[in-house]
This record gives sequence, C-alpha cells and structure tokens, in this order.
Amino acid sequence: MFSKETYIQRRAELKKQVGSGVLLFLGNDDMGLNYEDNAYRYRQDSSFLYYFGISNAGLSAIIDIDEDREIIFGDELSIDMIVWTGILPTLHAQALEVGISDTRPALEVADYLKKAQEGGRALHYLPPYRPEHRIKLLEWLGVPLAEQKGSIPFIRAIVKQRNHKTAEEVVEIEKACDVTAEMHIAAIKCLRPGMYEYQVRAEIERVAMEHGMELSFPTIATKNGQTLHNHSYDNKVEPGDLFLIDAGAETPMGYAGDMSSTFPADKTFTAKQREVYEIQNAMHLESVKALRPGIPYMQVYELSARVMVEGMKQLGLMKGNAEDAVREGAHALFYPHGLGHMMGLDVHDMENLGEIWVGYDGQPKSTQFGRKSQRLAIPLEPGFVHTVEPGIYFIPELIDLWKGQKKFTDFINYDKVEEYRHFGGIRNEEDYLITETGARRLGKKIPLTPEEVEALR
Amino acid sequence: MFSKETYIQRRAELKKQVGSGVLLFLGNDDMGLNYEDNAYRYRQDSSFLYYFGISNAGLSAIIDIDEDREIIFGDELSIDMIVWTGILPTLHAQALEVGISDTRPALEVADYLKKAQEGGRALHYLPPYRPEHRIKLLEWLGVPLAEQKGSIPFIRAIVKQRNHKTAEEVVEIEKACDVTAEMHIAAIKCLRPGMYEYQVRAEIERVAMEHGMELSFPTIATKNGQTLHNHSYDNKVEPGDLFLIDAGAETPMGYAGDMSSTFPADKTFTAKQREVYEIQNAMHLESVKALRPGIPYMQVYELSARVMVEGMKQLGLMKGNAEDAVREGAHALFYPHGLGHMMGLDVHDMENLGEIWVGYDGQPKSTQFGRKSQRLAIPLEPGFVHTVEPGIYFIPELIDLWKGQKKFTDFINYDKVEEYRHFGGIRNEEDYLITETGARRLGKKIPLTPEEVEALR
Repeated sequence: MFSKETYIQRRAELKKQVGSGVLLFLGNDDMGLNYEDNAYRYRQDSSFLYYFGISNAGLSAIIDIDEDREIIFGDELSIDMIVWTGILPTLHAQALEVGISDTRPALEVADYLKKAQEGGRALHYLPPYRPEHRIKLLEWLGVPLAEQKGSIPFIRAIVKQRNHKTAEEVVEIEKACDVTAEMHIAAIKCLRPGMYEYQVRAEIERVAMEHGMELSFPTIATKNGQTLHNHSYDNKVEPGDLFLIDAGAETPMGYAGDMSSTFPADKTFTAKQREVYEIQNAMHLESVKALRPGIPYMQVYELSARVMVEGMKQLGLMKGNAEDAVREGAHALFYPHGLGHMMGLDVHDMENLGEIWVGYDGQPKSTQFGRKSQRLAIPLEPGFVHTVEPGIYFIPELIDLWKGQKKFTDFINYDKVEEYRHFGGIRNEEDYLITETGARRLGKKIPLTPEEVEALR
Repeated sequence: MFSKETYIQRRAELKKQVGSGVLLFLGNDDMGLNYEDNAYRYRQDSSFLYYFGISNAGLSAIIDIDEDREIIFGDELSIDMIVWTGILPTLHAQALEVGISDTRPALEVADYLKKAQEGGRALHYLPPYRPEHRIKLLEWLGVPLAEQKGSIPFIRAIVKQRNHKTAEEVVEIEKACDVTAEMHIAAIKCLRPGMYEYQVRAEIERVAMEHGMELSFPTIATKNGQTLHNHSYDNKVEPGDLFLIDAGAETPMGYAGDMSSTFPADKTFTAKQREVYEIQNAMHLESVKALRPGIPYMQVYELSARVMVEGMKQLGLMKGNAEDAVREGAHALFYPHGLGHMMGLDVHDMENLGEIWVGYDGQPKSTQFGRKSQRLAIPLEPGFVHTVEPGIYFIPELIDLWKGQKKFTDFINYDKVEEYRHFGGIRNEEDYLITETGARRLGKKIPLTPEEVEALR
C-alpha cells in the first residue's frame, strides 16, 4: 500500500475531475473454480485498488461528491471467522490507512444508492466485466443487464489519472518488470529439445512465485508462436523449433510487468530463423528509438510496420512501396496485432474501461485488420508506461484465407510465403516509461538481439 | 477424455435415475481477473465434465428425458477466430467423441427451455455457484436470484453416480495423487530456515506444472498451520517453526489429488513437536486401519477424536473420559475440522451440490462445533474415494474464546494449554479408495511417521 496521502490525493483529484454526483466502485468478489469455496486467487478490481488500496473480497465504495463523503462498505470478521483466519487488521483499520474513517456494513450500500437515486442525483458506475458486478448493478441500481454501460465522465476522469504513472508507481512497476525479466531469462536458459512446453511454463511461473509475486496474465509458452491466442502447453519441443514466451509478474500491490521473448530450441538460430528474427529486431529497435513525448503511438506502430515491410521485401516475401502497403494494411498478414498497450495496475491498463478512452482519447478506432488491434494511438506523454512488442508470424490459416481471397497481391508474394508456412512466430516485448525527454526501459534487460539470445542458450 | 461409451453410459444411468423432465447443465464461462479478456485459468463445471467431457467455455447442455434428446449448445469458432487460435477440433467433432451428434448455437438453449416451460415440463437445474450461472437461470428460466435452489432429484441422481468411482476414474485420480505426493516430497526436501513461505509454494506448484497439471485448490504453505484458512505466503521461516502444507494437483481431465504434510523447519522435530506429532500420527494410523465398507465415516471421525483425547491426556492438556469429551465436542478445541471428504472431479467432491447429499444421504448435520465440519458421515462403500486428514492445532483465538467462556473445563486443562499457545498446527492427509474388503491408499507415499519425515529433511 502507498501512503495515506497518495490515496487521499487520488480521490481528491477524481472528485475535482467528475465535479458532482455519486461515484460507485464495485470491488471484486471471490470466484469459485468448481464450487464456491474453492476460489481462484483473489484479485481486487484495479480502480478500487487505485483509489482505496484494499485488497479484500466483498467490498464496495462510494465517493459522494455532492455530500463530500467517502465510504467503504464491507463486513468485519466475526469471532467465529477469526478462529479460522487468525487475527487480521479490521476493515476499519485498513480504511484508516487510506484516509477513510467511514466504513459501513456491506449491505448498506444498496440503501445509500437508493436514497441517492430518489434524490435525483447522478450515479456513476464503471462498465462491469464480471458477472457479480452485473448482478449488483441489477439488484442495487435496477439497471437491466443489457443496459449496464458505465459512466463516460467517470471513465474519462479515471483514465486521465491512471494513464500518468507517478514516481512511486514506476518503482512498483519496475519491481514487476525485474521479476518478469528473471522469468524470461530462466526459461531461455532452461529450454532444451525434448522438453514439453509445460516444463518451460513451470520454470517461468516458479520464478514469479519465488519472488513472492503472482502472474499478471496467463503465461504463453509455446513452440507455436504463430497462434496468438495460445494457452496450451502440451507440445514437445523439437530441434529446429522456435519457442515464444509472453509472460509477466504482478507485485503484491497489483502492478504488472509484461515481456515477450523468442528463441531457438537449439543453441543457435538457423539461418532462416535469424533472417526473420533480425527484421523483427529492427522493428523493435527502430520503435524504441522513436519513443518521446508528443509522438502519436500510432505513428510508431506504422514505423514498425514499414520497417517490417522493407525487411520482408529483402526476403522476397513482400514487394511494392512500404508506405502504401502499411496504409492499406498488407503488412498485417505477418503482423496482425498492435505495437503495444498501456501497462500499470492491469497488464492492458484499464482495458475494462474501454480502449478508446485509454488509448484513443475517445476518437474512433480504425476497422482495418491489424491496425484495429493497436491499443494505443494517442501522442505519448511523460508518465505513460507501455509495451513495445512488434511481431512477425506465419499463420497458415490467415495465409490460406488471404491467398484464397487474392488479397494484397500487389504487396505479397504468396508463392514465397509458402516456403515459410511452418516457420512459426517471433515476438519480443519490453516495457517503457515515457520521460520528459524520451523513454526509459523498465526492469532488468532481457536478450533482444540474436547475439544476446544465443549467448544465453 | 474417457471413451465415448463411458459418457453414453453415464448419461443413460442419469436418465434412468431422474426418470422424466429436462436436465439443464450450465457450463462454466471464462472469468476475467481484472478485465474480461485477462481470464483466470479455465475450469469446466465438474458435472458438465462428468457427463459431457468437454472443457470449453460458453457451453450448456440439455438432456431431455421425455423426448430422448441430448444436446450441447455452443458456438463454433468463426474463421476470424481461427486466425488467432489455430485450427482446433470443432464443438461438433468434440461432441461426437462423447456420443452426442446434436450441437446447436449457444443462444438457442433459451428458446429450448422456454418451450419446455410452456409445455409444463419439469425443468431440473443444479445449484448455481458462480454468478454467471445465476444470470443464466434468471435470463433463461426467469428464476429470481433469491430462489435459485437447484433440483433435489437431479442432485441426488448425480451424487449417486459420482460418489462411486469407476476403475478408469481411479486411474485418473491416482495420477493426480502421484503428482500431489511429488509436490509434498519436493517441498519437504527444500525447506530451510530463512526461506519465505512463498519460496516453498513456488517449489510445490512448479512440480505440479512440470507434470503438465494444474492445482486442484489453492496451496496452503505456512508456518502458521493453526490458521486453517490461510492463503498468505509472506512469512519468513525461522528455526523451531513447524511448517504445514496442504496442496494437490489436478489432471488435465479434471481429477484431483489432496494431501497435507507437516514437518519441522529444522532437520528434526523438537521433543515437544514430536510428542504432539505422534498423537496426530496415531489418529491418522488408527483411522486408516478402520477403513472398510460399511463403517460410517462419522464413526471413524469419532475414533480419531478419541485417539487424540487419549494422547492429549498423556500430555496433561485434556482430562476425563475420552468418549464423553468427543460426544460433547471438547476435542474440537484442538481438532476443529473433519476427518475427510469425498474427492474426485472436485477436491471436495460435489461440494457445489450440497454436503448433506454427498456425505449425509440427506440427513441433517450436527450443529456442534467441530463435528459439523465433518463433510462425510455415511457408511463407506466400495468405490468411494476420500481423504484422511486428522489434525491438532493450538489456535490462540479459539483458546481465548473458550477459556473466557469457561467451556469444557471438565475436559480441558487451560493452564497447560497456555504452554502450547504458540505451538502451531499439525495435519497430515492421504487419499484412500474403499475396496470390497478394506481400503487402498492412492498415489505415491508421502512421509507420515516422524522418522519418515526426518529422513527427508
């Protein structure tokens, strides 16, 4: 937990931004895996953490701007419960640590909200992303399930604050990044042909836990890097495979790290692997060089895509003018995702509040395949923390789809592409803080150049 | 997945047991940790797994007994999704593997249920344990949130089947138990004073993952074994501490293992630790000796409690007649939980269906502290798989509570108890299959006697 003043100041700023009304924060509840008491690891809602710092199930909170009240609703442990849990700080004591003296029983929140509604006051809540939120909005506010959209002024005020990381937040994020780097380094060192993906995953996650951290998202550890939504670990790694990891740690306070690395199952890259890896490496290094306050991150994305097209032209996989190819979206056959996203208390920071508020300042997103997956488009500002993660993939299903549609035949040499059909995928990812003058990489360095990777193998 | 015939036979038996009506199975959905797409590891509902075997989010299923239909509702991946996921078996192909040819789009389940309701047919569903179940029952069946109790004939029929493990299920459970034992053995070997609890946890969970398994429940790895609901890992282990682990693996098919072990932070037990450990050991060994078809597990619990009382009398902690003490509940100061629970596709098997159906055959449970935590009371039958896990704890909060209430002063020497105030807790746990003639321990052996424990340290 940060100091009391941090939370008081955060709430004061939020009140100023929204101006009036009642702000409702729904904490997360425990969630049963296969029955109620066999719960997943508890994770508090990130906005609740940001403004109230308390990571207990069963809470909600209200900031009543009009009446200048801040209240946390939740139940104290009974003596019967304390027999099982041992003595823990009371909710009231925890609330005092974040500058709140008004705690009330959990169920009273419904009455409070009802009175505010009857008084005709503006009630602000955030978009629900868990079913227990949806049930509460239905039961407490009477908002039908299909109409639970969230309050835009509330969302925008939060985004404005949370998008800019303070120095103490950066310290926390960097702790997560340091451990995240250790997770990757341990995995790069341990992989040998003949191992199963789940053994690599075991090593990655062991490192997070060994440092007292949890995971910020489900680990990707795969020889099929071209499969972007990949959470299986069942394959045996063979000589000649490329191995892709996307994994990160979360600190006890909830801050995330997020890195990716790609390396050969053998001690060294094959010539073919290295050629593509070097293109991806150039995309990464050129993107990092471009980071500075004021540059729209969409421009950096486009830069990374142009670097890729130029490289792919050298290999004979693409042709034509790189700028045209990127404008039209031909690069997305090999690079179908974005260059990066905000990172903080969520690995995709505030994704629950809506990407267009976090990364687009409310402006509409492109609908173009590839470009539409860019989560961050706005000009970078000091205090932003985001990932840099270009990638190159050969996705058989996408190749077949586009080839069948004769898509972008002016830019893509499909015959040549067939030679890479089983190549796999490459992604590397680091985390950056935008400073007053440029950008700073967060956390311990992971191998990035082919030489750095091979040195660890 | 088991063979098609297994699932066909399970459903046929279920239909016979319930007799008529429409059985609704709600599959589990993905659950976002801090935003929708950052999901916890997916876990299918266990009854869905038992009858339909398919572990995908977004499914529901119906067994329409009256019209003799079996239908799985869920959406096939679009080509847009396949670009991200790679080619996976279709839902239809997976359904065929469990003997079901009728698959329909996810949303059609609501209409099917509505028509069945309009036809005045009996609709059976299970008690919801996740909020997404509750929303579906509200939206699809119109059952108000407060009235979603579940169908007792449906529950009883499932319990009757799932309580008896078949040979192929036992093979699966034993795989989980073998890895569970490896998790404990690795931890017992690695602990040294000066380590943090989270480092031990890291080792335990690494072993599960290294074997391609998940956890069947959140790991307990603590120097505060007396705190029964303990999921923090922040303490530093000091010389003289006792360390308690309760952890288990889950196989890819969903079957659980569940074992506990207690060992000293030092190479050997202190004399005081060993004295109490030997009492707990006797409780365990005597309980195991008593396992056989026909004996009510409540009787075995009482036996374990009597063994404890006799031992505690030797130490001067208790006094009086052991049988009286156990009948009145005095033992529960040191042994406040049960002796064990059913285990299968859930670590507490079918806890979501209700303990009184699984472990009490519908008979009411005792309300006595301690005894009421016994989850399994009925006579054991061949095919039951359950845990044996007696424990002895010195819980300061409970000691203070009872001492203040002058509770059971005929049986408890509170002055002597004070000498053990900071002793901690001891639990050992193994998993047993009831056979035709007795019982068989499942999985590799973990250390149980003090000698066995010390040999691994």
